[in-house]
Amino acid sequence: MPTVHGVNASPFVRKVRVALAEKGIAYDLVPVMPMGQTQEFLAISPLGKIPVYQDGDFTLPDSSCIIAYLEKTTPEPPLYPGDAHAFGKALFYEEYADTRLAEVLGPPFTQRVVTVKIMKGEPDQAVIDEALANTPPVLDYLESAIGDEEFLAGGRLSVADIAVATMFVNWGHAGETVDARRWPKLAAYIDRIHARPSFKAVIEEEQAQLRAMG
Amino acid sequence: MPTVHGVNASPFVRKVRVALAEKGIAYDLVPVMPMGQTQEFLAISPLGKIPVYQDGDFTLPDSSCIIAYLEKTTPEPPLYPGDAHAFGKALFYEEYADTRLAEVLGPPFTQRVVTVKIMKGEPDQAVIDEALANTPPVLDYLESAIGDEEFLAGGRLSVADIAVATMFVNWGHAGETVDARRWPKLAAYIDRIHARPSFKAVIEEEQAQLRAMG
Repeated sequence: MPTVHGVNASPFVRKVRVALAEKGIAYDLVPVMPMGQTQEFLAISPLGKIPVYQDGDFTLPDSSCIIAYLEKTTPEPPLYPGDAHAFGKALFYEEYADTRLAEVLGPPFTQRVVTVKIMKGEPDQAVIDEALANTPPVLDYLESAIGDEEFLAGGRLSVADIAVATMFVNWGHAGETVDARRWPKLAAYIDRIHARPSFKAVIEEEQAQLRAMG
Repeated sequence: MPTVHGVNASPFVRKVRVALAEKGIAYDLVPVMPMGQTQEFLAISPLGKIPVYQDGDFTLPDSSCIIAYLEKTTPEPPLYPGDAHAFGKALFYEEYADTRLAEVLGPPFTQRVVTVKIMKGEPDQAVIDEALANTPPVLDYLESAIGDEEFLAGGRLSVADIAVATMFVNWGHAGETVDARRWPKLAAYIDRIHARPSFKAVIEEEQAQLRAMG
C-alpha cells in the first residue's frame, strides 16, 4: 500500500489525502512533523517539506507534484479539467492557494493552534491581526472567482477546489469563518466542498485530535 | 499572435520564452516590469507577478501554469515526460528550481545587476555572501540529480531542464559560474542546455541589453 509521509493539520498533507480519497486510493499515513526532520527524510524531501508520497521505491515530495502524478497513475475520477483553458486556470488557482492563501489564512492557525495548543506557547496577536487585515482582498478575489459556478474550473471538482478548500480548514481550526453576509458565494462554496466525504472524514479526524489537546 | 507580458532577465519570463521557442510558437513580448504594476495588470495577474501569457481574451499567469497549458494546446514536442514516475520527478525539479534555486542563485543577480545596473544603487555584499554560502549543497544535489544522464527526467528535454537552466542564466549574468572541477557533471549539463538555440537566443539578447547598460 502506498504511504503518505506527513501529519494531520498540515494543509498540504490534507490536500494530498483528499485527492487520494477522491480517487479511491488506500494509503498509510506515516507521521513526519513539519520541522526537525531526519537526514533520512531530507533525502526523500530535498526542500524539507511534508508531504512525501511513497509507492515502493518511488518517492515524490510536494503536494502539487504528487496530485499531478496520481492523475497519471489513476486517471479516474479526473482532478484536472480536460479543456486547456480550464486546465490552466485550475493550476493557477492551485498556485494561488498554495502561496497567497497559505500566507493570509495560515497565521491564525499557526499562532492559535500550533503555538498555543501544540507548543504550549503564547500567540503573537500582531501576526494574527496583520494576516486578518490582509484577508478581505483575497476573499473578494475568490468570491468573484467562484461566482455562480459550483466549482472553480471545468465544471467539476478539480485540484483547484481541493487546494483552496484545504486552506480554509486550517482557518476554521483557528476559529475563523467566511462571513456569509459579505462573501455569500464563497461561504456557500467552502461549506459545499468541506461537506464532501473526502474532506469531511479528514476534518472530523483532525477536530477530534485538536479537542483531545484541550 | 499570443503575447507574453514580462521583461527580459526575469528567470520566469525566460522560462516561458524558452518553452515557447522549443514548441515553435511565435509570440510578442510586451514589457511589464516586476514591480510597480498597474491595476489593469494586477487584474490578469492576481499574485502581481510576471510573466502572464495572453492568447486573445484568455490570460494565464505563472510560468509553471503557462507551460503546462502550452503542453495541452501544442503537445509537440512534449516538455513533460510520458512515464508517470519521470513526470512526477520533472515537476519536482521544476518546483525545486522555482523556489530553492531562485532563493540561492537569485541574490547575486539582484544585487549586482538589478540594484547596481538598473537601480544605480549600492549592492549589499552580505546578501550576496549569504547566498553564495548556501549554494554548494544545492549544486551537490543537482550534480547527483543529473548524474550521467543527458537530461534531468524522462530521457529528453523537459520543463525540469528549462526551469533549472534558466536560474543559472541569471547567476551567469551576475558573473558566477559552476566550478567544473567540483561539479563537473552539472557544469557540463548547464553548458549543454544553455547551448540549445532556444536558450542561446534569449541569453545573447539579454547579454547585449546588459552590456548596453554599462
